[in-house]
Amino acid sequence: MDKLEKMILEYGEVREGNILKVDSFLNHRLDPDFLYQIGEEFYRLFKDKEITKILTIEVSGIAIAIMTALIFKVPVVFAKKTESLNLDKDVYTGKVFSYTKNKEYNIMISKKYLNNNDRVLIIDDFLAEGNAMRGLIDLTKQSGAQIMGIGIAIEKGFQQGGKFLRNEGYNLKSLAIVDELKAGCIKFRALE
Amino acid sequence: MDKLEKMILEYGEVREGNILKVDSFLNHRLDPDFLYQIGEEFYRLFKDKEITKILTIEVSGIAIAIMTALIFKVPVVFAKKTESLNLDKDVYTGKVFSYTKNKEYNIMISKKYLNNNDRVLIIDDFLAEGNAMRGLIDLTKQSGAQIMGIGIAIEKGFQQGGKFLRNEGYNLKSLAIVDELKAGCIKFRALE
Repeated sequence: MDKLEKMILEYGEVREGNILKVDSFLNHRLDPDFLYQIGEEFYRLFKDKEITKILTIEVSGIAIAIMTALIFKVPVVFAKKTESLNLDKDVYTGKVFSYTKNKEYNIMISKKYLNNNDRVLIIDDFLAEGNAMRGLIDLTKQSGAQIMGIGIAIEKGFQQGGKFLRNEGYNLKSLAIVDELKAGCIKFRALE
Repeated sequence: MDKLEKMILEYGEVREGNILKVDSFLNHRLDPDFLYQIGEEFYRLFKDKEITKILTIEVSGIAIAIMTALIFKVPVVFAKKTESLNLDKDVYTGKVFSYTKNKEYNIMISKKYLNNNDRVLIIDDFLAEGNAMRGLIDLTKQSGAQIMGIGIAIEKGFQQGGKFLRNEGYNLKSLAIVDELKAGCIKFRALE
């Protein structure tokens, strides 16, 4: 998505440890028109998949997921991060290791909101090693729902998440893939 | 807002400790069309205030804030919750005590995204004792921005937040005010 690449080049800040900060339009300040355009792009990519639900994870996935859902006219369910493992039988639970925070956290979705009739599009803002995504896939599998696609705003192509998911056969589409990330030099992979 | 009251009566779950769970449309599963209608209602209430920015706090304020922002055609900034107090000089910081989690947490907004030219509409999903709202007001005051209005989806009228904010002179509008909260008996205050 040309505009996303342009926004990353113009406003993205590169920090130590392969961190790309896009606080000005995706992670702290949100531009609603631009996020709506991201939703339209996900619609273009997945509109023939008969999606019944958009799945994401708090916090930063929520805004692009709800915009995408507005266009698909389906509900969003966002997985919640919890400090304690919820042993309630009414929830699907999993664990995610966060490299940026260097700790493991628990995630959960209520069984009421995802089931084996659902055809799910998973949406998230970033894909790096893919840990959060593996957690979301795990919860979706527990529910019996089908994963029809995975839509990512920014994939870090030099980390392993995208490769892993494509090898597993998931229909993964990233709107921008960053293959090289240095201050003053951000290189994108050409998209199909 | 009649439809919000109807949704609360139909789908809200009353739990011990004055908890009203509205996970099915506001806090876990999100209905984009309904959240868009909430945005339209906030627009109707505040459209003449020349709003330049919508301010909210992660997590549950984000979805209704971005929908409202889409209609106002202004950006959202969401305050971030942080475990450690960020001493970076580039951020406004404050503290919020959470009764539901029984702990104090820090909140922050980057100075880049809020300043004294802004005319702010603060949006949140719930108002109870008003602790999170006082934190957001504190950050806004630090920035020098003007608070033109406060829009709440669900106010718990039997707690003190709404009374406090109205006494302080804030232009607070809640789309539903719950005055009594018992299982099988949810009573709403008549709205102007």
